[in-house]
This record gives sequence, C-alpha cells and structure tokens, in this order.
Amino acid sequence: MAADEFSLIERCVLSLAPRPDPDVLLGPGDDAALLASCGSDWLCATTDALVEGIHIPPGTPPEAIGHRALAINLSDLAAMGARPRFALLALTMPQGDARYLDRLFHGLLQLAQRYGVSLVGGNLSRGPCNATITALGSAEAHGTLLRSGARAGDLLAVTGTLGDAHLGRLLLPHSSPQHNDPALRFLKRRYLYPEPRVQEGLALRHLAHAAIDLSDGLIQDCGHLCKASGLAAVICAERLPRSRAFESRADQEQWLRLPLAGGDDYELLLAIAPCHWPQAATALGGSTAPLTLIGRLEAGSGVHVDYQGKPFSLPSSGYNHFEGT
Amino acid sequence: MAADEFSLIERCVLSLAPRPDPDVLLGPGDDAALLASCGSDWLCATTDALVEGIHIPPGTPPEAIGHRALAINLSDLAAMGARPRFALLALTMPQGDARYLDRLFHGLLQLAQRYGVSLVGGNLSRGPCNATITALGSAEAHGTLLRSGARAGDLLAVTGTLGDAHLGRLLLPHSSPQHNDPALRFLKRRYLYPEPRVQEGLALRHLAHAAIDLSDGLIQDCGHLCKASGLAAVICAERLPRSRAFESRADQEQWLRLPLAGGDDYELLLAIAPCHWPQAATALGGSTAPLTLIGRLEAGSGVHVDYQGKPFSLPSSGYNHFEGT
Repeated sequence: MAADEFSLIERCVLSLAPRPDPDVLLGPGDDAALLASCGSDWLCATTDALVEGIHIPPGTPPEAIGHRALAINLSDLAAMGARPRFALLALTMPQGDARYLDRLFHGLLQLAQRYGVSLVGGNLSRGPCNATITALGSAEAHGTLLRSGARAGDLLAVTGTLGDAHLGRLLLPHSSPQHNDPALRFLKRRYLYPEPRVQEGLALRHLAHAAIDLSDGLIQDCGHLCKASGLAAVICAERLPRSRAFESRADQEQWLRLPLAGGDDYELLLAIAPCHWPQAATALGGSTAPLTLIGRLEAGSGVHVDYQGKPFSLPSSGYNHFEGT
Repeated sequence: MAADEFSLIERCVLSLAPRPDPDVLLGPGDDAALLASCGSDWLCATTDALVEGIHIPPGTPPEAIGHRALAINLSDLAAMGARPRFALLALTMPQGDARYLDRLFHGLLQLAQRYGVSLVGGNLSRGPCNATITALGSAEAHGTLLRSGARAGDLLAVTGTLGDAHLGRLLLPHSSPQHNDPALRFLKRRYLYPEPRVQEGLALRHLAHAAIDLSDGLIQDCGHLCKASGLAAVICAERLPRSRAFESRADQEQWLRLPLAGGDDYELLLAIAPCHWPQAATALGGSTAPLTLIGRLEAGSGVHVDYQGKPFSLPSSGYNHFEGT
C-alpha cells in the first residue's frame, strides 16, 4: 500500500487526537509544538535512534519498533528520576506503507499512554528505516539521579532481572516449533518490548545517590557510573538477578556472561547508601521489577567482578557501536 | 581513521564544553540533559531528520550536513516566532570516522553559536548516515505564529529570495571550471548552508497573523497555511523575489518554476494585515532577508498563481517524500 507523505502524516496526527493533554497547547500539524513549561522543575531531555538492522534485526514487527524506540528514551528519563511528559518522533522509512505505520504507531502509543506521554510532533521522510525519539520530562530541582552522585560505601542494586533481553535476542530465530513455550515468549518479549523503569526511578529519586540505565551491558554501564563518580565497583556475579525463564534456557556460559555483559536490559543500576537500603527495597516492594543488591562502591576505579569468591573477568565487556570498524 | 563510540562521544562532549550556558544545568554525558524551564513562556519543540542521499546528495561536505541539520529545525522555530535555546542530535553514520565527525560538529556548532543554541545531548550510533536534530525554544504565550492564524484580506509576504537553493542544488555538480564564479558559489551556499530566519520570525511575531517556513516549495507550503486558516491565496508570480545570482543563472523555465515550487528555500511566508504592513516592512529593513509582498489571502481555498495577468498552473507543486512510491 502506498500513500503520500501528507496523508500519512494526517493519519498519524488523527490517531493522536483522541487524548487531549492540557499541557500541549499545540500538538502535531504546525511547524513546531507548543508545550506548557515545567514551572519550577527542570526540563529533562534525551534522544536516541533505533535503526533497523543495527539495533534491532530486519523484519522486527513494527509494533516492537515503535514500542522500543520510545522505551529506550523513557528508560533514560527513568535513570534521571524524571517524569516523562512529551515525545517527538523523526521517522524515516523506505516506502510510504500506511499499514506498517499504523502498526508502528500502535506500539509506540500504547506505551506512551501507559506513562502519560503525549506525542507532540514528528517528521516522516523517506530513507533507511530509522525511528529517532526525543523524550522530554520534568525533573525536580535537587531530586535527580546523576551518574556522578555515587559515594564510596554505597551499595549497588539493580531493578528486575538481567540477561533476559540478550538471550531473547539470540532465541529470536527459534520461533515456530516452540511458539507456545512461555519461557521463550517471555525472553523474546523482554528483548522486543523492554519496559522502562519510570515508576522505579521516580520512587527512588530521593533515596539513591546515582543511577544509570543498562543498555550496553552491566559491566560497561557500571563503568560509566564509576568513572563519573570517581569510584570502583565490586560486583558479585552469583547475586545478579536472573529470571526463571532465563535460568531454564541459558547454557552455563550464558548464565554467567549475559547478565554481566548482555546489553538491552533497560533495567536501572543504582547507588544507594546502606542506611537507605531498607527504605529503597521497600519502595519497590510492590514493583514487578524489585531491587536486588549486587555489589558495592569503594575508592578506586574500574569494575571488578567476583565469582565463586575469586576475581573474574570476561573477554568482552559490552556493546560498542564502532568496535572493530 | 577509526575510533570507538565512547571516545567519539567524549570528543564531541569536550568540543562543547568551552561555552557554558547558565540554563544548561547538565549537558551531554549523562542519561539525559537537565535544562532550565521556560518560566511563563511556552516550550516550542520540533524535530527533523537529514538523510544523506535523500535530503542531501551523497558526498556533501560534513560541515554542510551539520549546519543544515540544525538550520532546518531552527527554521521551524523561526516560523513559530520562537527563540531557539537548546538542540539534541541523534547521529547515525556508517563508520566511526573522527575527522568526519569533527567537521560535521564544526558546521553544526558554528550555526548554534550564532543563534545562542546549546547542544545539550546526543546519541551516536552505527547506521546509514542520518542526522536528526530536535530543537527546543521558548515562545511567548500569545506571541506565536501559527499556520492557522491568517485572516481574509491579509497580505502574503516572504523573507529573502526564492529559488536560489533549488538552482544551487541543480548546479552542485558544476564545480571545477567555474569554481570562482560568485553567482555559482552564492547559489550553492544557499542550498548547502540555509540561514534560518530566526531574527525575522522574532521581529514579526507580534505583527504577522500566521507564518510557515518554506521547505517544500512556495505553492505547497502556502497550501498548508491556506488549509490551516481556511482561506485561499492569490500569488503574483512576477513579484516573487529573485536574487541577482538567480537571475543570472536561471533559464526561462527555471525563472518561473523554481521560486514557486523549488523547495529548500527556508525563507518565511507570512500573513500580515494591511494595516501592519508598513511596520512589518520597516522591522526587517536592516535584515539581509527583507520582506517582499507577493500576494494576498481571501475567502475560498487553494493557492492561485497569476502570471502576466492570467491564472497560471505548474505541472507539479512541490516536493513530496513518498510521491510515486
């Protein structure tokens, strides 16, 4: 099905119309959107691209592309302890396929609705498939979670479970025979439809010293937090939270490696003072992504992993877009 | 030259450091940027992608890609009468080429500096060359220029000259023998380095009823303004402002067609009440892109062009990304 740019844009604008947001003075359809200011809060802004064939395999369902493009940005806001409010989408796709676009918007808007995010603007053009979202949120002045706020002695904790998404990605081609296998479905869903930890970030913004979201693998992202805070991390590999589905499908090597270096988890890694730990654990008591203690921060530098009581190192520590180019 | 993602990102972050902006509480380097709110103003947000091979020919100098990616977004803010403040860049490129990136950032940051725009965040990943900018500005509540604000009887005016950019694009391959031809240089520059009409939009925000920026060609973009305002436009083809360089290089057919339907002008089209016309013309008296009266708005619909006293129509009316797919 082919359609011209303006009818495609109108289609999307109309699909957005039913949910009025009093903070959106002017939504899609003009040269730019007009939005209510954050008042005394800070504006929190992030942008991230999702490129088919690079970040997600060719042939991924368009619903998953729409969901994931927004989720990875909301995850960044969550890691700041910010409340998501608005999103803009710059979409390039090879053909003007209205059905594809409807499905992509369906995935995106379902997630947006769940977190009270209004899609306020966008741009559609021809080109290799690329969905770039900019997410805007509000952050309490003095209630934000920076990478640089951690202190020596802080505990390290993560939300949810690690390694699921990477294993789900590896298992993507295995669809037909085990289609009804719930573990396989769970793992694939963790890869295709990551859940941004927005509520968790908000609940912990006054309790944690620092946070980062895990997109490139625990060791690599923990390394960014350590570097920004000028500290060293010690992580206990046995303690990393693994889902039942992960435990049932991972081989021995994957069991150890994927939670440390798998990437695509989109869980939060937090630095929390020991005195705040009980309160933080309780704050996420009702969450589907509760906190697990995985290590501690101390003076020094680098990320050190203990496994079976001994120092442990992996050959590769995460995903780097330009590695080997 | 190859470099990994983090060293490329660090390189860019460092290149941004020297110009501190008190409204940027936290710039690039964390999960998201933290920005001062607009106070009582509205936040004005827009996003637009620049794809090499689609929006700009392969082999375009990286400085021009950086400049143009930002310029087309600032042009959208200008058409709202907004003051640009911040920008975020999501860049995908096939290889981690630090020299290319430096040149792209040079083009982008030179323009950003000229308009007081802080680059506050970004993302770099592998993929087909795509530079997507999100620009954020502040707009006076009740002092914004919407497409829908025009009234019957308003005059239509444009800033600067039309057709230069499209002719420059057509002449891009003609480089070596006439390299020092100032007309050729001017026209190419108008295509590769469009100047967003930010000051002009600000100067006219209380004088004009409506505005749109010209990216897809006058007839097409004027059609959007007419549709949003529920009016018809009558444009006088002889009155369209043409530069001396354009006059010297355009053939007869181009002379008529390109200012009407050429695209890539990034001038502003404004609807102005006759009683405000003298003041508006004076307001841009010192600008390098003064106002020219090109027609009027009346009851009805559609864009009607007069040429030599008779109705005139072009076979095609502008650029549509998905035309013919």
